[in-house]
Amino acid sequence: MFKINDNYLKLPGSYLFSTIARKVNEFQAANSDKSVIRLGIGDVTQPLAPAIIQALHSAVDEMADAATFHGYAPDLGYEFLRNAIAKNDYQDRGCEIASDEIFVSDGAKCDSGNIQEIFSVDNKIAVCDPVYPVYVDTNVMAGRTGTYDPKTEVWSDVIYMPCTAENNFAPQLPKETPDLIYLCFPNNPTGATITKTQLQEWVDYANKVGAVIIYDAAYEAYISEDDVPHTIFECAGARTCAIELKSFSKNAGFTGTRLGYTVIPKDLKCGDVMLHSLWARRHGTKYNGAPYIVQKAGEAVYSAEGKEQLAAQVAYYMKNAKTIKEGLAEAGYTVSGGVNAPYIWLKTPDKMTSWEFFDYLLEHANVVGTPGSGFGPSGEGYFRLTAFGTYENTVAALERIKKM
Amino acid sequence: MFKINDNYLKLPGSYLFSTIARKVNEFQAANSDKSVIRLGIGDVTQPLAPAIIQALHSAVDEMADAATFHGYAPDLGYEFLRNAIAKNDYQDRGCEIASDEIFVSDGAKCDSGNIQEIFSVDNKIAVCDPVYPVYVDTNVMAGRTGTYDPKTEVWSDVIYMPCTAENNFAPQLPKETPDLIYLCFPNNPTGATITKTQLQEWVDYANKVGAVIIYDAAYEAYISEDDVPHTIFECAGARTCAIELKSFSKNAGFTGTRLGYTVIPKDLKCGDVMLHSLWARRHGTKYNGAPYIVQKAGEAVYSAEGKEQLAAQVAYYMKNAKTIKEGLAEAGYTVSGGVNAPYIWLKTPDKMTSWEFFDYLLEHANVVGTPGSGFGPSGEGYFRLTAFGTYENTVAALERIKKM
Repeated sequence: MFKINDNYLKLPGSYLFSTIARKVNEFQAANSDKSVIRLGIGDVTQPLAPAIIQALHSAVDEMADAATFHGYAPDLGYEFLRNAIAKNDYQDRGCEIASDEIFVSDGAKCDSGNIQEIFSVDNKIAVCDPVYPVYVDTNVMAGRTGTYDPKTEVWSDVIYMPCTAENNFAPQLPKETPDLIYLCFPNNPTGATITKTQLQEWVDYANKVGAVIIYDAAYEAYISEDDVPHTIFECAGARTCAIELKSFSKNAGFTGTRLGYTVIPKDLKCGDVMLHSLWARRHGTKYNGAPYIVQKAGEAVYSAEGKEQLAAQVAYYMKNAKTIKEGLAEAGYTVSGGVNAPYIWLKTPDKMTSWEFFDYLLEHANVVGTPGSGFGPSGEGYFRLTAFGTYENTVAALERIKKM
Repeated sequence: MFKINDNYLKLPGSYLFSTIARKVNEFQAANSDKSVIRLGIGDVTQPLAPAIIQALHSAVDEMADAATFHGYAPDLGYEFLRNAIAKNDYQDRGCEIASDEIFVSDGAKCDSGNIQEIFSVDNKIAVCDPVYPVYVDTNVMAGRTGTYDPKTEVWSDVIYMPCTAENNFAPQLPKETPDLIYLCFPNNPTGATITKTQLQEWVDYANKVGAVIIYDAAYEAYISEDDVPHTIFECAGARTCAIELKSFSKNAGFTGTRLGYTVIPKDLKCGDVMLHSLWARRHGTKYNGAPYIVQKAGEAVYSAEGKEQLAAQVAYYMKNAKTIKEGLAEAGYTVSGGVNAPYIWLKTPDKMTSWEFFDYLLEHANVVGTPGSGFGPSGEGYFRLTAFGTYENTVAALERIKKM
């Protein structure tokens, strides 16, 4: 008789954003007259930029002609895209990353969920708390996290690194030594960043203790301050301890188009074994490449027109971030984030729990946000709003919140 | 100190098709004057059909306008596509499959590699031999296959079901009871099929012993004979024991466009737990949906124009299959397949091993095929040619082979 992977049964409830979607649908069904503004899930609202649309149409035309048709893509991505990534995102910044150290994928969510597969089940993970749920949940599925205590919402075998107002939302080096360290800066959900000097400390620490840093840089395009690193490979020694995950979702609006990449330097080894080889094997066996037309769209992100149009798109969202942050501050909320990230992190008022504030905000302002506790125990009492709505909706949401 | 998943180190050599690609590249580099014809990897050559191209352009236009832009797709796929699949591929055939039992993905290779994750590591798998390498390799990575004997090319904990000329390439019920049974019909690589009565025996067996059949129906569109089932859900009782994998790669030329789906009936349970829930959780956590534009392309596959154009495309490839099969038979080869599948399976001449014949064919006819032994020990002494080339190349390849 077959048996299931019973690690799945340890997962408490459903994926955070599925729960939010269900709650919003229920509210909307019961209140069809109310217009709900969604500043919850980090989904973008601006259309794809003209340079990207043009690249897509042109690639579709290629697929219509046998002479230019593209079948299976190279396992690790087309050269044209890997070269553009290596040059623009790394070499032009003075970082030593070659195009064959880049693995093109269908997005950073998949990569951040799949990357743990190449590591031993015995490895111990460290995560920021609060944190993007995929890191922990996929390790639960793999059987790496021990047992769950529903009271404290803590897994017995996970090292939590609290990020709260007390430490300015920057994790401190853990007391217990981890094998895998998940870091995400600019941070989801807090919108916080760390400086290059601070990140260098993490790289030095990982090299010292023999840990791998899985660095999620999905929000890199939103960095506005000078001393915030755009990639972990700005740090000396990162080539022997870091894997970087990047997304096209937030800098180019690809949430529904799906493209991302992972960088694994060839110097990152366990004994003689390059992690690069393991990921190449996984990619070649369990994945079959991103669509040609989407990879061509990704290439357009790096064209002169693409860069200009996307800078304007990022500026549009950051204007929203400013609107939210300043509006909430005016309304008396304690807020952070929103300067180098499209996320605003606020303290819930009147000692409400995160989910109480979710319900309160939905009920009284018809605005959807994300409960901080959904990202981990230290997120309790916090709440996330995103800058990815339209400007009009963002302004309207803030007016409603101020009136609450 | 972090550790790797050392199951990866057990994998012998590289993924089959990567090895072939390397060998062909080396030959081409050393013989730049020779024109190589590739009838090896199952990649298509015909361009996307006009109905699909039109759907893609139209979806790209939608992505250019904020009013019709699409961000994150629903976890399990858009309703429009799931409804089209449920109706056309199941309900119209009298099979009871609902649209919410369909999980849209970026292809059957990924699904066939990922599906084992929802099962216990203790489960024992049974595979046809020869077989599509992804089934075994992904179970190796998960630690489910025991140890590898390089001499016999056999994994200690895998149940092999030989499919050779002796049993007409149809597997027999295994002596040892498996937990997970991988079946693929029409078969890759042999091109063989089994009748509905034969498949019903498998379904009855699986229900009796408490096994799950993972049924890969990627080549369903090539079925030309009446008594060959188009889906395992034609069989009574399949809803309690079967998962079906489907691809858009072979019926619609999506090898470089990436779309597939998995069917998990809600009646398929381990105790109280629906496998449907586990896969939904995996999909929601480790995957983020197929691109909107690609799902719209998938919808066009089911339009009246799409169906007509794709029937012509399948007929084109099946004309190639006939050309290969008849040509090889004329040249004295023992051949099978090619009637309900785009694959022709031939016995290597003069007791050559599969790789010897690969080299011989590449050297003397400059034709690339796939060594049968790459698909498993019982594939030794066989060779696969695919019908996915152009008609001109197929005819030319056969002329060269006849002259050898």
